[in-house]
Amino acid sequence: MLKECKNGERFAGTVLVNEWKEVPFRQKSGAFLTLTCQDRSGILQGKMWEYPPQVLGWLKEGHDIFNIRGVASEYRGTLDLSIEEIQLIPKEEIDLTTLLPSSPVSEKELESRLQTLQTKIHSPFLQMLLNHFLEHPQWGQAYRQAPAAVKIHQAYLRGLWEHSVRVAELAEGIAGHFPSINQDLIITGALLHDVGKIGEYSYERGIKFTTEGRLLGHIILGLELISTEISKIPEFPQELRSKILHIVSSHHGKYEWQSPKRPKIMEALVIHYADIMDAELYQFEQARNDHPGDEWSPYIPSMERYLYLK
Amino acid sequence: MLKECKNGERFAGTVLVNEWKEVPFRQKSGAFLTLTCQDRSGILQGKMWEYPPQVLGWLKEGHDIFNIRGVASEYRGTLDLSIEEIQLIPKEEIDLTTLLPSSPVSEKELESRLQTLQTKIHSPFLQMLLNHFLEHPQWGQAYRQAPAAVKIHQAYLRGLWEHSVRVAELAEGIAGHFPSINQDLIITGALLHDVGKIGEYSYERGIKFTTEGRLLGHIILGLELISTEISKIPEFPQELRSKILHIVSSHHGKYEWQSPKRPKIMEALVIHYADIMDAELYQFEQARNDHPGDEWSPYIPSMERYLYLK
Amino acid sequence: MLKECKNGERFAGTVLVNEWKEVPFRQKSGAFLTLTCQDRSGILQGKMWEYPPQVLGWLKEGHDIFNIRGVASEYRGTLDLSIEEIQLIPKEEIDLTTLLPSSPVSEKELESRLQTLQTKIHSPFLQMLLNHFLEHPQWGQAYRQAPAAVKIHQAYLRGLWEHSVRVAELAEGIAGHFPSINQDLIITGALLHDVGKIGEYSYERGIKFTTEGRLLGHIILGLELISTEISKIPEFPQELRSKILHIVSSHHGKYEWQSPKRPKIMEALVIHYADIMDAELYQFEQARNDHPGDEWSPYIPSMERYLYLK
Amino acid sequence: MLKECKNGERFAGTVLVNEWKEVPFRQKSGAFLTLTCQDRSGILQGKMWEYPPQVLGWLKEGHDIFNIRGVASEYRGTLDLSIEEIQLIPKEEIDLTTLLPSSPVSEKELESRLQTLQTKIHSPFLQMLLNHFLEHPQWGQAYRQAPAAVKIHQAYLRGLWEHSVRVAELAEGIAGHFPSINQDLIITGALLHDVGKIGEYSYERGIKFTTEGRLLGHIILGLELISTEISKIPEFPQELRSKILHIVSSHHGKYEWQSPKRPKIMEALVIHYADIMDAELYQFEQARNDHPGDEWSPYIPSMERYLYLK
Amino acid sequence: MLKECKNGERFAGTVLVNEWKEVPFRQKSGAFLTLTCQDRSGILQGKMWEYPPQVLGWLKEGHDIFNIRGVASEYRGTLDLSIEEIQLIPKEEIDLTTLLPSSPVSEKELESRLQTLQTKIHSPFLQMLLNHFLEHPQWGQAYRQAPAAVKIHQAYLRGLWEHSVRVAELAEGIAGHFPSINQDLIITGALLHDVGKIGEYSYERGIKFTTEGRLLGHIILGLELISTEISKIPEFPQELRSKILHIVSSHHGKYEWQSPKRPKIMEALVIHYADIMDAELYQFEQARNDHPGDEWSPYIPSMERYLYLK
Amino acid sequence: MLKECKNGERFAGTVLVNEWKEVPFRQKSGAFLTLTCQDRSGILQGKMWEYPPQVLGWLKEGHDIFNIRGVASEYRGTLDLSIEEIQLIPKEEIDLTTLLPSSPVSEKELESRLQTLQTKIHSPFLQMLLNHFLEHPQWGQAYRQAPAAVKIHQAYLRGLWEHSVRVAELAEGIAGHFPSINQDLIITGALLHDVGKIGEYSYERGIKFTTEGRLLGHIILGLELISTEISKIPEFPQELRSKILHIVSSHHGKYEWQSPKRPKIMEALVIHYADIMDAELYQFEQARNDHPGDEWSPYIPSMERYLYLK
Repeated sequence: MLKECKNGERFAGTVLVNEWKEVPFRQKSGAFLTLTCQDRSGILQGKMWEYPPQVLGWLKEGHDIFNIRGVASEYRGTLDLSIEEIQLIPKEEIDLTTLLPSSPVSEKELESRLQTLQTKIHSPFLQMLLNHFLEHPQWGQAYRQAPAAVKIHQAYLRGLWEHSVRVAELAEGIAGHFPSINQDLIITGALLHDVGKIGEYSYERGIKFTTEGRLLGHIILGLELISTEISKIPEFPQELRSKILHIVSSHHGKYEWQSPKRPKIMEALVIHYADIMDAELYQFEQARNDHPGDEWSPYIPSMERYLYLK
Repeated sequence: MLKECKNGERFAGTVLVNEWKEVPFRQKSGAFLTLTCQDRSGILQGKMWEYPPQVLGWLKEGHDIFNIRGVASEYRGTLDLSIEEIQLIPKEEIDLTTLLPSSPVSEKELESRLQTLQTKIHSPFLQMLLNHFLEHPQWGQAYRQAPAAVKIHQAYLRGLWEHSVRVAELAEGIAGHFPSINQDLIITGALLHDVGKIGEYSYERGIKFTTEGRLLGHIILGLELISTEISKIPEFPQELRSKILHIVSSHHGKYEWQSPKRPKIMEALVIHYADIMDAELYQFEQARNDHPGDEWSPYIPSMERYLYLK
Repeated sequence: MLKECKNGERFAGTVLVNEWKEVPFRQKSGAFLTLTCQDRSGILQGKMWEYPPQVLGWLKEGHDIFNIRGVASEYRGTLDLSIEEIQLIPKEEIDLTTLLPSSPVSEKELESRLQTLQTKIHSPFLQMLLNHFLEHPQWGQAYRQAPAAVKIHQAYLRGLWEHSVRVAELAEGIAGHFPSINQDLIITGALLHDVGKIGEYSYERGIKFTTEGRLLGHIILGLELISTEISKIPEFPQELRSKILHIVSSHHGKYEWQSPKRPKIMEALVIHYADIMDAELYQFEQARNDHPGDEWSPYIPSMERYLYLK
Repeated sequence: MLKECKNGERFAGTVLVNEWKEVPFRQKSGAFLTLTCQDRSGILQGKMWEYPPQVLGWLKEGHDIFNIRGVASEYRGTLDLSIEEIQLIPKEEIDLTTLLPSSPVSEKELESRLQTLQTKIHSPFLQMLLNHFLEHPQWGQAYRQAPAAVKIHQAYLRGLWEHSVRVAELAEGIAGHFPSINQDLIITGALLHDVGKIGEYSYERGIKFTTEGRLLGHIILGLELISTEISKIPEFPQELRSKILHIVSSHHGKYEWQSPKRPKIMEALVIHYADIMDAELYQFEQARNDHPGDEWSPYIPSMERYLYLK
Repeated sequence: MLKECKNGERFAGTVLVNEWKEVPFRQKSGAFLTLTCQDRSGILQGKMWEYPPQVLGWLKEGHDIFNIRGVASEYRGTLDLSIEEIQLIPKEEIDLTTLLPSSPVSEKELESRLQTLQTKIHSPFLQMLLNHFLEHPQWGQAYRQAPAAVKIHQAYLRGLWEHSVRVAELAEGIAGHFPSINQDLIITGALLHDVGKIGEYSYERGIKFTTEGRLLGHIILGLELISTEISKIPEFPQELRSKILHIVSSHHGKYEWQSPKRPKIMEALVIHYADIMDAELYQFEQARNDHPGDEWSPYIPSMERYLYLK
Repeated sequence: MLKECKNGERFAGTVLVNEWKEVPFRQKSGAFLTLTCQDRSGILQGKMWEYPPQVLGWLKEGHDIFNIRGVASEYRGTLDLSIEEIQLIPKEEIDLTTLLPSSPVSEKELESRLQTLQTKIHSPFLQMLLNHFLEHPQWGQAYRQAPAAVKIHQAYLRGLWEHSVRVAELAEGIAGHFPSINQDLIITGALLHDVGKIGEYSYERGIKFTTEGRLLGHIILGLELISTEISKIPEFPQELRSKILHIVSSHHGKYEWQSPKRPKIMEALVIHYADIMDAELYQFEQARNDHPGDEWSPYIPSMERYLYLK
């Protein structure tokens, strides 16, 4: 796996090349290749100082799956891979998802935790709404595959699913301390709060924003998906619909964070805080994984601080 | 008309009583009545120092249309109305819209300006979208009746319509200076940017926020209306749909002003500025009308400044 | 009870007079008395339109406990009490705490929930620290009596205790989802995060800021109390001490909210969010209690919004 | 032209060398030259890996106009020029303005649009003020030569003139929708709003801030220029003067954007928005030119967003 | 003196009536008069419950100087004056400045402190600039009469002069610790930093903003005055001029406080801080004077806090 | 001295190597060494293109003091040192403080200025508090050695001491203009305001944040130190204690700058401004030293502006 390579170690394996470039040498004639290599462990920048012309041909034709061999080396604090050999692999021989990172939590476990959550819902309307989604031929699959972010937290396949289940479990626990909170709304709202990310990101060859995602964002895309599904459920109560949509609209908690509304019902407030806690605590866990044994993390821009890891 | 009364003048006419309260005297026993009176010129606070018990009965039963007589007097800078006589009028005898303020621009003029704008659109999809709206049995009527705000600008019947037409005309003029702007999008986007206000306000007896309006806001309500109508138009291009929805999402221009997106296309940028200019210049005009002959307006909280009126 | 009085009802009972003033009539000679009356249900503004000179004498001498009789009346949306009779009660005859509002949660219940939390702590150092506090002749008592705020949330006797237990229970539940969080730190930190409020407020005759509270604030006062107690525990680990103090320093989460540090350990982050959730959800519950049957609360300045109560 | 060079193409032509440096090689002895080359199409970074000592002599003596030959090559996304030959050109042989970028709109066209605007002004005082400026031996010339910015928008010769005319045309169109706006003030104010940029930038050899520009800024420098000219016009009305100066003071619209006043008259408001729209829409147009065929622009720091270009 | 009156005391004296109003009684017919009375000790609100018609006549004709008799009484924490008798005084009999508050520091003392400061200046250009100002037939007088603010600090006649001298003395002392600071610039800049307040306020009958003051502000008005005077001094060095103008432009220190530039030279930085310290410490002194013996001031909006007065 | 080296000059001397790294060559096999070299004049980045294996051994064993020889060269605006020879020096042969930068003001001078300040204090309690500190076996030494910052201002040994004395002298001068300020508090508060930096930084081998410093910060660490010392002084007045601690808590002046309180007493206000002025004016002086002869400094991030140096 790419991410397991250490300075000086050799690597051999199959990779997806996300991006590539031919770069002229700085202080002599000629050029070298840079290739952004990815497998399911993560991304590593590759360099080829010399390469047969055939390689350039493959890349220009749009091929992006290769067997490579090389050696990892660190330069000014960043590890990259000097590639010595590269060999084309036909697309049909490979299952793409094996080359993309995915959640450390298995499908089986997520499915089981999801079902546990679903069985706790008593409202038939909310049960129906969730079922519509999770068994939808298109959305159900996408919901279980999409990442939760482009970077920062759960930026891998199944990330949305993992994040949604975690937030729902967390919010349910919090809500248990406040008797006037509606647990059905909590679970449904938490499982659906980020559902618009299905349309905000594409993730077939690396996680990227879609044009719709940039123009509208996952809050609006999620509202569309949910109101479309609700419209298929006869007699879905108007007030319940407003509350679910309000939860999605307000889950970022602040206008500055692109929520057009702030939480005005208890359930929206709890989901907002469960969401932010899951995302921030994930970054603590990640920093510990990435810097084992360190006392302090490097500066984490998304949290605007250094984290203490001991 | 209520708003034409000056300090010391007598008033007699038909009013809608929005709110009322029985208030005990401060420094002696007994009570007086306060009644918020409205006719199409605006709102005036009424007081009845003495009143027959029957009046209280009417109010408690929910009656709200009366003929009144009284005299206007100013107290600490605010004018109110000492009511001497009050007489119940049966609801069926009165057309409610004659008691609510409405746009100074006539229906006929707005309809004609609207049509002029529509004829400038070449895209059949955008023509269809606008027609769907404007001829919709429910939305078409609501669009032509709703106010543009609870207060601040065009807070009267037909205000939304007036504001939308003004913004469209303004935006069209601006866009004319930039050849790469799509005028079809400008006109359609400007006419629809605030369409969610149909659902954000109720305005049968004074302008108020609806519950849906407070939970979701007019941007989200507008997006729902528009995407519902678009879904009825076969083969409406996906990209055009994203652009129209983006214009609505971003028309407040900033996250802090509850726009979940900021303008990323030229048309959205122009509509945002046309919208804000119309709203702000309206307040200048209003301040001049409200304070004829004054050099400076009082402090205008929505603009956070004093305006120079000469 | 004062808070149970409705417009037009009579009241008779014992009250604490927090503040009083002799007010000349506006439009005639002479004066009336205003008396801020408090019993354990809350505060009501009292008026005496006529009063024997003796009453003024009592007040000037600093007496503040009286039996009163009067009638409640509403003026412009605010209820107050027209006092007709007033009779001095000797201080020794009355237990002051019966005249101050206190937590709806009983001492017995709080003590039991507190003990449950304490038994979950395994670290002997943190056990000792908590014991020192809770059994301290002065602090233990104050911790169980102080309010959690001057207004906004749990602004009554035992409020600090109630809030601390709620935050600890909430934080413990949240932390249960994250295996790398130290539950001992969570419980101890949550129980002690606001301990400086012991010194920030005085609450013998109404809740007020102390001078020390205004000059230093409860974060710094809490840090002092905790580091004093820690210094009495031999071999208390330096790192554990830094973490506990960091939790207190950062529990407001942001510099703008007077936290000199932001959370840099997971435990501090969880306690910050548990604290803010308890305070905000309390305001939802309070709004429902104060406005039973209403769809929307009035504007809540501390949350900068209207709350939906249905 | 420098900006027309593509990766791998050769260039030969006359350039102005704005800045230069002798850089020792990183990983071997010796040094190479970097030269910032500019012609009227824009700026390109040049490198000379080997150079005769004479070249260093020319540069040290302050010579900055050369004929060069070389080849363009891209390195990590940036194009630069490997210079192979360089030849000194005597200053007197070259017209400097041919080596600086200038507005795509011709002088002739700008002059004609300017005159059209001027003829619309009725106030003799404002006519005189504009004439004083535009025919001033020093300011008239500078106004027609200065750039509108150091970067971001219209950062080339004649940029101020182009921007001023565009803003005036735009503002005039907007104002046409509001009968109480004074068109004379709009046109004059728009043409003069940025006039202080004459003194804020120097632009003989690349666009740079002057010391006066940094210490005072173009708003204050503009106010000085205008009040000096006004003082030469007998009986210029005091109030008109205040309004013109207010327009200049407030044209950035916000204190944070260095306007010491915010618009308090309608004319100032319109000019502020016309100014900001011209600057922002220019950036859209520029992004389309710079990235033809792309769906999205790169991140635009001055607008804090990505722009959609389709 | 008005400000020396205590609750229940009688007052007799000459006052300037700034504003007046006839107010109908709230709960009976008829009206009373409110008169804003001012003498040199400050302002007191007056009431006349009964008044001969003649009084109304005087007021309507614009008379504003009267001998009055009455009694002070406090209502809800505010003292006002029940006027029993009122008698017109002809304008010519009274020196208006005796009815306006003025600095507690005498003219003589200010003149002497000013001269001491002036003698410390060595630069002949800056000496000349100051002399031009202070001996200018119009500005010299205005500088010595104008207030320093409408409220908040030194809001009385001679306030600008007092504030300027204090800031200059303070800045000079600070600058003495930093050898590279130019003391000539410090003294001149400090004495002139607020000079535009001459035009920003009118103060003949109470302190008010002028229209020019609101449209342009004292920074721009000050820059105009100073650059006009500089233009009369032959060979005034350009750089010195830029520095003086920069000091004035940047003396508020931040864009949000309406400074179009922030301090970029040491002298500007010191004057900014001396200015803010003088204004803030003045408010401490004032709070102590206004609340003798109190431990804490009331909330001071301009400082956004309570001040500790012991 | 390292900092005196100019481009092309040779260096020979003893250095402390703070950090080092083995860096593989970019475009060929093999590696070079980077060594961060420091002596008392400052820091210079070193490179060794070739090195005997023994050198790597020394570094891996943790040796960090060496005699080196090399030549300075500039690359893209930054000077570094090509090291040709390196020789290990035994730790015992060298006094570490000779290799760290320290204040340009001598110990003797600081001691004398400190004593002058101390003799001005009349309060025996504050005298005692200061003596406790300055003669404390551990704190007295640390106070005289610690830097005032990691970078930005007085970031060298004795920096805290120099800064404290400067702030005290400055604050005393300012306070002299305001008779109601307590000079004893000013001097004591100013000398102690930053005392927590003793614990916030480590500075034995380069200036770095400690873990306690990052978790608690110098305000809280300072409060702890001071309240510990106060607790040793019998009968130290409670109010004086609160004021001293308030001064430390509020000396950053704003919540956003990590002060949990804002200045509420005059002494705290003056110390805050003296502190900020000393830090900012230091940066002006530093910019002049670092860029002699330049008109403008480069952009100074900590002040968010360019400084004018002439």
